Amino acid sequence: MNTYKLTIEYDGTGFSGWQRQDDRPTIQGELEAVLSRILNQDIRIHGSGRTDAGVHAMGQVAHFRAETRLAPGQILKGVNSLMRHSIVLRDCVRAADDFHAQYQARSKEYRYYILNRPTPNAVGRNYCWHVNRPLDTDVMTRCSRYLEGCHDFKAFENTGSPRSSTVREVFSAGWIHKEDEMLVFSICASGFLKNMVRNIVGTLKDAGSGKLDTKTFGRILAGRDRSLAGATAPAKGLFLYRVEY
Amino acid sequence: MNTYKLTIEYDGTGFSGWQRQDDRPTIQGELEAVLSRILNQDIRIHGSGRTDAGVHAMGQVAHFRAETRLAPGQILKGVNSLMRHSIVLRDCVRAADDFHAQYQARSKEYRYYILNRPTPNAVGRNYCWHVNRPLDTDVMTRCSRYLEGCHDFKAFENTGSPRSSTVREVFSAGWIHKEDEMLVFSICASGFLKNMVRNIVGTLKDAGSGKLDTKTFGRILAGRDRSLAGATAPAKGLFLYRVEY
Repeated sequence: MNTYKLTIEYDGTGFSGWQRQDDRPTIQGELEAVLSRILNQDIRIHGSGRTDAGVHAMGQVAHFRAETRLAPGQILKGVNSLMRHSIVLRDCVRAADDFHAQYQARSKEYRYYILNRPTPNAVGRNYCWHVNRPLDTDVMTRCSRYLEGCHDFKAFENTGSPRSSTVREVFSAGWIHKEDEMLVFSICASGFLKNMVRNIVGTLKDAGSGKLDTKTFGRILAGRDRSLAGATAPAKGLFLYRVEY
Repeated sequence: MNTYKLTIEYDGTGFSGWQRQDDRPTIQGELEAVLSRILNQDIRIHGSGRTDAGVHAMGQVAHFRAETRLAPGQILKGVNSLMRHSIVLRDCVRAADDFHAQYQARSKEYRYYILNRPTPNAVGRNYCWHVNRPLDTDVMTRCSRYLEGCHDFKAFENTGSPRSSTVREVFSAGWIHKEDEMLVFSICASGFLKNMVRNIVGTLKDAGSGKLDTKTFGRILAGRDRSLAGATAPAKGLFLYRVEY
Protein backbone atom coordinates (compact mmCIF):
# COMPACT_ATOMS: atom_id res chain seq x y z
CA MET A 1 0.00 0.00 0.00
CA ASN A 2 1.25 3.46 -0.87
CA THR A 3 0.23 6.72 0.71
CA TYR A 4 -0.58 9.74 -1.47
CA LYS A 5 -0.80 13.37 -0.44
CA LEU A 6 -3.23 15.57 -2.40
CA THR A 7 -3.32 19.37 -2.51
CA ILE A 8 -6.76 20.54 -3.56
CA GLU A 9 -8.27 23.81 -4.75
CA TYR A 10 -12.04 24.13 -4.76
CA ASP A 11 -14.85 26.59 -5.26
CA GLY A 12 -17.18 25.68 -2.41
CA THR A 13 -20.21 27.37 -4.03
CA GLY A 14 -22.97 24.81 -4.40
CA PHE A 15 -21.26 22.17 -2.27
CA SER A 16 -22.50 21.05 1.16
CA GLY A 17 -18.96 21.44 2.48
CA TRP A 18 -15.98 19.10 2.55
CA GLN A 19 -17.29 16.09 4.42
CA ARG A 20 -18.97 13.23 2.53
CA GLN A 21 -22.75 13.03 2.85
CA ASP A 22 -24.85 10.38 1.20
CA ASP A 23 -27.42 12.62 -0.41
CA ARG A 24 -25.59 15.88 -1.06
CA PRO A 25 -22.67 17.06 -3.23
CA THR A 26 -19.48 17.42 -1.15
CA ILE A 27 -15.83 17.90 -2.05
CA GLN A 28 -14.77 14.68 -0.34
CA GLY A 29 -17.58 12.75 -1.99
CA GLU A 30 -16.74 14.00 -5.49
CA LEU A 31 -13.02 13.33 -5.06
CA GLU A 32 -13.57 9.83 -3.71
CA ALA A 33 -15.90 8.97 -6.58
CA VAL A 34 -13.40 10.09 -9.24
CA LEU A 35 -10.37 8.53 -7.49
CA SER A 36 -12.23 5.23 -7.05
CA ARG A 37 -13.04 5.22 -10.76
CA ILE A 38 -9.46 6.01 -11.84
CA LEU A 39 -7.82 3.56 -9.45
CA ASN A 40 -10.51 0.92 -9.93
CA GLN A 41 -10.93 0.35 -6.20
CA ASP A 42 -12.82 1.88 -3.31
CA ILE A 43 -10.86 4.97 -2.20
CA ARG A 44 -11.45 6.82 1.05
CA ILE A 45 -9.62 10.13 1.54
CA HIS A 46 -8.86 11.96 4.80
CA GLY A 47 -8.77 15.75 4.75
CA SER A 48 -6.77 18.05 7.02
CA GLY A 49 -10.15 19.12 8.37
CA ARG A 50 -13.68 19.95 7.27
CA THR A 51 -14.78 23.12 5.58
CA ASP A 52 -18.38 24.34 5.75
CA ALA A 53 -20.85 24.65 2.89
CA GLY A 54 -19.80 27.55 0.63
CA VAL A 55 -16.25 27.80 2.02
CA HIS A 56 -13.46 27.62 -0.59
CA ALA A 57 -9.91 26.26 -0.56
CA MET A 58 -6.73 27.18 -2.36
CA GLY A 59 -4.72 24.49 -0.59
CA GLN A 60 -6.74 21.89 1.26
CA VAL A 61 -4.65 18.76 1.89
CA ALA A 62 -5.87 15.16 2.03
CA HIS A 63 -4.33 11.71 1.92
CA PHE A 64 -5.36 8.24 0.82
CA ARG A 65 -3.75 4.81 0.75
CA ALA A 66 -3.93 2.54 -2.28
CA GLU A 67 -2.14 -0.09 -4.31
CA THR A 68 -1.71 1.13 -7.89
CA ARG A 69 0.76 1.15 -10.78
CA LEU A 70 -0.27 4.67 -11.74
CA ALA A 71 2.33 7.36 -11.11
CA PRO A 72 1.19 10.35 -8.99
CA GLY A 73 1.32 12.57 -12.09
CA GLN A 74 -1.04 10.21 -13.88
CA ILE A 75 -3.46 10.28 -10.96
CA LEU A 76 -3.35 14.10 -11.02
CA LYS A 77 -4.08 14.28 -14.74
CA GLY A 78 -6.79 11.64 -14.54
CA VAL A 79 -8.61 13.35 -11.68
CA ASN A 80 -8.46 16.79 -13.30
CA SER A 81 -9.77 15.49 -16.60
CA LEU A 82 -12.75 13.68 -15.05
CA MET A 83 -13.54 16.04 -12.17
CA ARG A 84 -16.13 18.80 -12.36
CA HIS A 85 -14.43 22.16 -12.81
CA SER A 86 -15.14 23.44 -9.30
CA ILE A 87 -12.56 21.00 -7.85
CA VAL A 88 -8.93 20.87 -9.05
CA LEU A 89 -6.02 18.75 -7.86
CA ARG A 90 -3.07 21.12 -7.57
CA ASP A 91 -0.63 18.40 -6.55
CA CYS A 92 -0.42 14.65 -6.00
CA VAL A 93 2.73 13.11 -4.48
CA ARG A 94 3.81 9.93 -2.72
CA ALA A 95 4.05 10.55 1.04
CA ALA A 96 5.57 8.63 3.93
CA ASP A 97 3.57 5.49 4.72
CA ASP A 98 2.30 6.94 7.99
CA PHE A 99 1.48 10.41 6.64
CA HIS A 100 -1.84 11.69 7.99
CA ALA A 101 -3.34 14.92 6.61
CA GLN A 102 -5.26 15.71 9.77
CA TYR A 103 -3.11 14.54 12.67
CA GLN A 104 0.23 15.68 11.29
CA ALA A 105 -0.84 19.20 10.24
CA ARG A 106 1.38 21.70 12.06
CA SER A 107 -0.41 24.85 10.97
CA LYS A 108 -3.22 26.05 8.78
CA GLU A 109 -3.76 29.43 7.18
CA TYR A 110 -7.21 30.76 6.39
CA ARG A 111 -7.93 33.97 4.47
CA TYR A 112 -11.12 36.00 4.56
CA TYR A 113 -12.13 38.55 1.90
CA ILE A 114 -14.33 41.56 2.68
CA LEU A 115 -15.38 43.93 -0.10
CA ASN A 116 -15.88 47.30 1.62
CA ARG A 117 -17.71 49.78 -0.60
CA PRO A 118 -21.24 51.18 -1.00
CA THR A 119 -22.38 49.02 -3.93
CA PRO A 120 -22.17 45.23 -4.06
CA ASN A 121 -20.09 43.34 -6.62
CA ALA A 122 -21.20 41.24 -9.58
CA VAL A 123 -17.78 39.83 -10.48
CA GLY A 124 -16.48 37.43 -7.80
CA ARG A 125 -19.62 37.74 -5.70
CA ASN A 126 -19.20 34.16 -4.40
CA TYR A 127 -15.69 34.94 -3.10
CA CYS A 128 -16.18 37.79 -0.63
CA TRP A 129 -18.48 39.36 1.94
CA HIS A 130 -19.87 42.71 0.82
CA VAL A 131 -19.96 45.24 3.69
CA ASN A 132 -21.42 48.56 2.55
CA ARG A 133 -20.59 50.80 5.55
CA PRO A 134 -16.95 52.02 5.76
CA LEU A 135 -14.79 49.91 8.08
CA ASP A 136 -11.95 51.34 10.19
CA THR A 137 -9.07 49.06 9.28
CA ASP A 138 -6.79 50.59 11.94
CA VAL A 139 -9.14 49.44 14.68
CA MET A 140 -9.51 46.03 13.03
CA THR A 141 -5.71 45.71 12.84
CA ARG A 142 -5.27 46.58 16.53
CA CYS A 143 -7.95 44.04 17.50
CA SER A 144 -6.26 41.33 15.42
CA ARG A 145 -3.14 41.56 17.61
CA TYR A 146 -5.08 40.18 20.59
CA LEU A 147 -5.48 36.93 18.66
CA GLU A 148 -1.79 36.09 18.36
CA GLY A 149 -0.35 33.57 20.84
CA CYS A 150 -1.91 30.75 22.85
CA HIS A 151 -5.49 31.50 23.88
CA ASP A 152 -8.72 29.80 24.78
CA PHE A 153 -10.87 30.67 21.72
CA LYS A 154 -14.18 29.49 23.22
CA ALA A 155 -15.68 32.95 22.58
CA PHE A 156 -15.32 32.33 18.85
CA GLU A 157 -16.48 28.71 18.74
CA ASN A 158 -19.92 27.62 17.60
CA THR A 159 -21.44 24.96 19.77
CA GLY A 160 -21.95 21.35 18.78
CA SER A 161 -18.36 20.61 17.83
CA PRO A 162 -16.49 17.74 19.46
CA ARG A 163 -13.05 18.78 20.80
CA SER A 164 -11.02 18.05 23.90
CA SER A 165 -9.75 21.62 24.35
CA THR A 166 -10.66 25.08 23.07
CA VAL A 167 -7.08 26.36 23.39
CA ARG A 168 -5.28 27.03 20.10
CA GLU A 169 -2.04 28.79 19.19
CA VAL A 170 -2.37 31.58 16.63
CA PHE A 171 0.99 32.13 14.92
CA SER A 172 -0.09 35.23 13.02
CA ALA A 173 -3.30 37.20 12.46
CA GLY A 174 -3.83 40.44 10.59
CA TRP A 175 -5.14 42.31 7.58
CA ILE A 176 -2.64 41.58 4.82
CA HIS A 177 -4.39 43.80 2.27
CA LYS A 178 -6.36 46.93 3.10
CA GLU A 179 -5.26 49.47 0.53
CA ASP A 180 -8.41 49.57 -1.57
CA GLU A 181 -11.97 48.25 -1.41
CA MET A 182 -10.86 44.66 -0.82
CA LEU A 183 -9.79 43.83 2.74
CA VAL A 184 -8.00 40.51 3.25
CA PHE A 185 -7.64 38.91 6.69
CA SER A 186 -5.09 36.15 7.20
CA ILE A 187 -4.90 33.90 10.24
CA CYS A 188 -2.40 31.10 10.72
CA ALA A 189 -2.82 28.77 13.70
CA SER A 190 -2.10 25.32 15.08
CA GLY A 191 -5.76 24.52 14.52
CA PHE A 192 -9.22 26.03 14.47
CA LEU A 193 -12.48 25.53 16.34
CA LYS A 194 -15.83 25.24 14.55
CA ASN A 195 -16.62 28.51 12.72
CA MET A 196 -13.71 30.19 14.55
CA VAL A 197 -12.46 32.29 11.62
CA ARG A 198 -15.94 33.40 10.58
CA ASN A 199 -16.81 34.34 14.18
CA ILE A 200 -13.55 36.28 14.55
CA VAL A 201 -14.15 38.13 11.26
CA GLY A 202 -17.75 38.91 12.24
CA THR A 203 -16.50 40.41 15.51
CA LEU A 204 -13.66 42.31 13.82
CA LYS A 205 -16.25 43.77 11.45
CA ASP A 206 -18.24 45.00 14.48
CA ALA A 207 -15.05 46.67 15.74
CA GLY A 208 -14.38 48.21 12.32
CA SER A 209 -17.87 49.66 12.13
CA GLY A 210 -17.66 51.25 15.60
CA LYS A 211 -19.92 48.80 17.45
CA LEU A 212 -17.13 47.87 19.86
CA ASP A 213 -13.66 49.21 20.69
CA THR A 214 -10.29 47.49 20.78
CA LYS A 215 -10.35 46.82 24.53
CA THR A 216 -13.82 45.30 24.32
CA PHE A 217 -12.55 42.97 21.60
CA GLY A 218 -9.80 41.83 23.97
CA ARG A 219 -12.35 41.33 26.75
CA ILE A 220 -14.59 39.25 24.44
CA LEU A 221 -11.67 36.92 23.67
CA ALA A 222 -10.70 36.66 27.36
CA GLY A 223 -14.35 36.20 28.47
CA ARG A 224 -14.78 32.87 26.63
CA ASP A 225 -18.49 33.67 26.08
CA ARG A 226 -19.72 33.14 22.51
CA SER A 227 -22.82 35.29 23.12
CA LEU A 228 -20.66 38.43 23.53
CA ALA A 229 -18.90 38.03 20.18
CA GLY A 230 -20.25 39.16 16.80
CA ALA A 231 -22.30 37.29 14.24
CA THR A 232 -20.75 34.57 12.08
CA ALA A 233 -19.41 36.09 8.84
CA PRO A 234 -20.74 34.49 5.62
CA ALA A 235 -19.06 31.32 4.38
CA LYS A 236 -18.42 32.62 0.86
CA GLY A 237 -15.61 35.01 1.91
CA LEU A 238 -13.53 32.24 3.55
CA PHE A 239 -10.64 30.32 1.96
CA LEU A 240 -8.55 27.51 3.45
CA TYR A 241 -5.31 28.87 2.05
CA ARG A 242 -2.54 26.52 3.11
CA VAL A 243 -1.77 23.56 5.39
CA GLU A 244 1.79 23.00 6.62
CA TYR A 245 3.33 19.74 7.85
CA MET B 1 -36.97 64.37 -20.24
CA ASN B 2 -33.81 63.79 -18.24
CA THR B 3 -30.75 61.83 -19.32
CA TYR B 4 -29.13 59.35 -16.93
CA LYS B 5 -25.67 57.82 -17.16
CA LEU B 6 -25.24 54.33 -15.69
CA THR B 7 -21.97 52.60 -14.77
CA ILE B 8 -22.49 48.85 -14.71
CA GLU B 9 -20.53 45.87 -13.39
CA TYR B 10 -21.56 42.43 -14.57
CA ASP B 11 -20.54 38.80 -14.51
CA GLY B 12 -21.20 37.76 -18.11
CA THR B 13 -21.27 34.03 -17.25
CA GLY B 14 -24.60 32.63 -18.39
CA PHE B 15 -25.64 35.71 -20.36
CA SER B 16 -25.89 35.85 -24.16
CA GLY B 17 -23.89 39.07 -24.11
CA TRP B 18 -24.88 42.71 -23.68
CA GLN B 19 -27.35 43.25 -26.49
CA ARG B 20 -31.07 42.60 -25.97
CA GLN B 21 -32.44 39.44 -27.58
CA ASP B 22 -36.04 38.39 -27.35
CA ASP B 23 -35.51 34.82 -26.22
CA ARG B 24 -32.22 34.89 -24.30
CA PRO B 25 -30.92 36.46 -21.08
CA THR B 26 -28.80 39.55 -21.83
CA ILE B 27 -27.42 42.35 -19.69
CA GLN B 28 -29.30 45.04 -21.61
CA GLY B 29 -32.53 43.04 -21.46
CA GLU B 30 -32.30 42.48 -17.68
CA LEU B 31 -31.47 46.12 -16.98
CA GLU B 32 -34.28 47.44 -19.18
CA ALA B 33 -36.80 45.14 -17.52
CA VAL B 34 -35.85 46.26 -14.00
CA LEU B 35 -35.58 49.98 -14.94
CA SER B 36 -38.97 49.86 -16.69
CA ARG B 37 -40.50 48.36 -13.56
CA ILE B 38 -38.95 50.90 -11.20
CA LEU B 39 -39.72 53.93 -13.38
CA ASN B 40 -43.13 52.59 -14.43
CA GLN B 41 -42.53 53.28 -18.12
CA ASP B 42 -40.87 51.59 -21.06
CA ILE B 43 -37.10 52.23 -20.73
CA ARG B 44 -34.58 51.61 -23.50
CA ILE B 45 -30.89 51.90 -22.63
CA HIS B 46 -27.93 52.49 -24.95
CA GLY B 47 -24.59 50.94 -24.04
CA SER B 48 -21.13 52.21 -24.96
CA GLY B 49 -20.90 49.07 -27.11
CA ARG B 50 -21.76 45.39 -27.08
CA THR B 51 -19.93 42.70 -25.20
CA ASP B 52 -20.04 39.05 -26.29
CA ALA B 53 -21.58 36.14 -24.42
CA GLY B 54 -19.44 35.33 -21.37
CA VAL B 55 -17.52 38.63 -21.39
CA HIS B 56 -17.59 40.59 -18.12
CA ALA B 57 -17.55 44.28 -17.26
CA MET B 58 -16.25 46.29 -14.33
CA GLY B 59 -17.31 49.60 -15.89
CA GLN B 60 -19.69 49.34 -18.83
CA VAL B 61 -21.50 52.65 -19.41
CA ALA B 62 -25.02 53.15 -20.73
CA HIS B 63 -27.56 55.96 -20.87
CA PHE B 64 -31.33 56.31 -20.96
CA ARG B 65 -33.79 59.16 -21.10
CA ALA B 66 -36.87 59.32 -18.89
CA GLU B 67 -39.24 61.58 -17.01
CA THR B 68 -39.23 60.65 -13.32
CA ARG B 69 -39.33 62.19 -9.86
CA LEU B 70 -36.91 59.57 -8.52
CA ALA B 71 -33.42 60.83 -7.66
CA PRO B 72 -30.49 59.02 -9.31
CA GLY B 73 -29.53 57.50 -5.94
CA GLN B 74 -33.02 56.06 -5.60
CA ILE B 75 -32.82 54.53 -9.07
CA LEU B 76 -29.46 52.98 -8.15
CA LYS B 77 -30.79 51.46 -4.94
CA GLY B 78 -33.97 50.25 -6.60
CA VAL B 79 -32.14 48.54 -9.44
CA ASN B 80 -29.61 46.86 -7.15
CA SER B 81 -32.31 45.55 -4.84
CA LEU B 82 -34.41 44.05 -7.66
CA MET B 83 -31.65 42.96 -10.06
CA ARG B 84 -30.16 39.47 -10.13
CA HIS B 85 -26.78 39.45 -8.41
CA SER B 86 -24.74 39.03 -11.59
CA ILE B 87 -25.51 42.64 -12.59
CA VAL B 88 -24.77 45.61 -10.32
CA LEU B 89 -25.23 49.34 -10.92
CA ARG B 90 -22.04 50.97 -9.66
CA ASP B 91 -23.25 54.49 -10.40
CA CYS B 92 -26.27 56.40 -11.68
CA VAL B 93 -26.03 60.15 -12.34
CA ARG B 94 -27.85 62.85 -14.30
CA ALA B 95 -25.97 63.62 -17.52
CA ALA B 96 -26.17 66.41 -20.10
CA ASP B 97 -29.36 66.17 -22.19
CA ASP B 98 -27.43 65.13 -25.27
CA PHE B 99 -25.11 62.63 -23.54
CA HIS B 100 -24.69 59.47 -25.61
CA ALA B 101 -22.84 56.48 -24.14
CA GLN B 102 -21.74 55.13 -27.53
CA TYR B 103 -21.06 58.16 -29.72
CA GLN B 104 -19.37 60.29 -27.08
CA ALA B 105 -17.01 57.62 -25.70
CA ARG B 106 -13.42 58.89 -26.09
CA SER B 107 -11.65 55.73 -24.98
CA LYS B 108 -12.31 52.27 -23.65
CA GLU B 109 -10.06 50.00 -21.62
CA TYR B 110 -10.34 46.23 -21.76
CA ARG B 111 -8.43 43.82 -19.53
CA TYR B 112 -7.72 40.18 -20.23
CA TYR B 113 -6.72 37.62 -17.58
CA ILE B 114 -4.58 34.57 -18.36
CA LEU B 115 -3.77 32.03 -15.65
CA ASN B 116 -0.45 30.50 -16.67
CA ARG B 117 0.39 27.37 -14.69
CA PRO B 118 0.26 23.61 -15.21
CA THR B 119 -3.00 22.89 -13.36
CA PRO B 120 -6.30 24.68 -14.00
CA ASN B 121 -8.08 26.75 -11.36
CA ALA B 122 -11.28 26.03 -9.47
CA VAL B 123 -11.66 29.44 -7.82
CA GLY B 124 -12.44 32.18 -10.36
CA ARG B 125 -12.54 29.76 -13.27
CA ASN B 126 -15.11 31.94 -15.09
CA TYR B 127 -12.78 34.95 -14.95
CA CYS B 128 -9.63 33.84 -16.77
CA TRP B 129 -8.18 31.71 -19.55
CA HIS B 130 -6.09 28.83 -18.26
CA VAL B 131 -2.94 28.27 -20.37
CA ASN B 132 -0.90 25.34 -19.07
CA ARG B 133 2.34 25.76 -21.07
CA PRO B 134 4.74 28.47 -19.79
CA LEU B 135 4.40 31.78 -21.66
CA ASP B 136 7.34 34.10 -22.34
CA THR B 137 6.02 37.42 -21.04
CA ASP B 138 9.03 39.33 -22.39
CA VAL B 139 8.13 38.36 -25.95
CA MET B 140 4.46 39.13 -25.30
CA THR B 141 5.42 42.55 -23.94
CA ARG B 142 7.57 43.36 -26.98
CA CYS B 143 4.74 42.31 -29.32
CA SER B 144 2.25 44.51 -27.45
CA ARG B 145 4.27 47.61 -28.35
CA TYR B 146 3.37 47.15 -32.04
CA LEU B 147 -0.26 47.78 -31.11
CA GLU B 148 0.19 51.30 -29.79
CA GLY B 149 -0.71 54.17 -32.11
CA CYS B 150 -3.04 54.48 -35.13
CA HIS B 151 -3.27 51.22 -37.07
CA ASP B 152 -5.58 49.32 -39.35
CA PHE B 153 -6.57 46.40 -37.08
CA LYS B 154 -8.26 44.32 -39.80
CA ALA B 155 -5.95 41.37 -38.98
CA PHE B 156 -7.62 41.16 -35.56
CA GLU B 157 -11.22 41.67 -36.65
CA ASN B 158 -13.74 38.87 -36.98
CA THR B 159 -15.89 39.17 -40.05
CA GLY B 160 -19.55 40.06 -40.12
CA SER B 161 -19.29 43.30 -38.18
CA PRO B 162 -20.61 46.52 -39.72
CA ARG B 163 -18.07 49.39 -39.57
CA SER B 164 -16.95 52.16 -41.88
CA SER B 165 -13.24 51.83 -41.08
CA THR B 166 -10.96 49.28 -39.48
CA VAL B 167 -8.49 51.93 -38.27
CA ARG B 168 -8.39 52.50 -34.52
CA GLU B 169 -6.02 54.39 -32.22
CA VAL B 170 -4.54 52.35 -29.37
CA PHE B 171 -3.47 54.70 -26.55
CA SER B 172 -1.77 51.99 -24.50
CA ALA B 173 -1.33 48.22 -24.62
CA GLY B 174 0.70 45.98 -22.37
CA TRP B 175 0.89 43.37 -19.62
CA ILE B 176 0.18 45.29 -16.43
CA HIS B 177 0.70 42.26 -14.19
CA LYS B 178 3.02 39.36 -14.92
CA GLU B 179 4.78 38.69 -11.61
CA ASP B 180 3.08 35.42 -10.74
CA GLU B 181 0.75 32.91 -12.36
CA MET B 182 -1.82 35.54 -13.32
CA LEU B 183 -1.00 37.60 -16.41
CA VAL B 184 -3.13 40.69 -17.02
CA PHE B 185 -3.24 42.44 -20.40
CA SER B 186 -4.62 45.97 -20.62
CA ILE B 187 -5.51 47.75 -23.84
CA CYS B 188 -6.94 51.25 -24.06
CA ALA B 189 -8.14 52.53 -27.44
CA SER B 190 -10.46 54.93 -29.23
CA GLY B 191 -12.61 51.96 -30.12
CA PHE B 192 -12.50 48.25 -30.88
CA LEU B 193 -13.45 46.01 -33.79
CA LYS B 194 -15.45 42.81 -33.33
CA ASN B 195 -13.46 40.32 -31.19
CA MET B 196 -10.37 42.54 -31.54
CA VAL B 197 -9.08 42.12 -27.99
CA ARG B 198 -9.66 38.37 -27.94
CA ASN B 199 -7.93 37.98 -31.33
CA ILE B 200 -4.98 40.09 -30.16
CA VAL B 201 -4.66 38.05 -26.96
CA GLY B 202 -4.90 34.77 -28.87
CA THR B 203 -2.05 35.93 -31.13
CA LEU B 204 0.03 37.26 -28.20
CA LYS B 205 -0.39 33.84 -26.58
CA ASP B 206 1.02 32.22 -29.74
CA ALA B 207 4.01 34.58 -29.49
CA GLY B 208 4.44 33.78 -25.78
CA SER B 209 4.46 30.05 -26.47
CA GLY B 210 7.06 30.31 -29.23
CA LYS B 211 4.76 29.78 -32.21
CA LEU B 212 5.71 33.14 -33.70
CA ASP B 213 8.36 35.79 -33.01
CA THR B 214 8.05 39.50 -32.35
CA LYS B 215 8.68 40.55 -35.95
CA THR B 216 6.08 38.11 -37.24
CA PHE B 217 3.58 39.62 -34.84
CA GLY B 218 4.33 43.04 -36.35
CA ARG B 219 3.92 41.62 -39.85
CA ILE B 220 0.56 40.05 -38.94
CA LEU B 221 -0.72 43.44 -37.76
CA ALA B 222 0.61 45.19 -40.88
CA GLY B 223 -0.69 42.45 -43.19
CA ARG B 224 -4.38 43.09 -42.42
CA ASP B 225 -5.12 39.39 -42.95
CA ARG B 226 -7.22 37.73 -40.21
CA SER B 227 -6.19 34.24 -41.34
CA LEU B 228 -2.57 34.87 -40.29
CA ALA B 229 -3.41 35.87 -36.72
CA GLY B 230 -4.01 33.46 -33.84
CA ALA B 231 -7.23 31.92 -32.57
CA THR B 232 -9.80 33.97 -30.66
CA ALA B 233 -9.08 33.79 -26.92
CA PRO B 234 -12.01 32.60 -24.75
CA ALA B 235 -14.64 35.17 -23.74
CA LYS B 236 -14.44 34.41 -20.01
CA GLY B 237 -11.02 36.09 -19.51
CA LEU B 238 -12.18 39.44 -20.93
CA PHE B 239 -13.39 42.46 -18.93
CA LEU B 240 -14.64 45.82 -20.21
CA TYR B 241 -12.80 47.76 -17.55
CA ARG B 242 -13.54 51.44 -18.12
CA VAL B 243 -15.11 53.88 -20.61
CA GLU B 244 -13.95 57.49 -20.67
CA TYR B 245 -15.90 60.52 -22.01
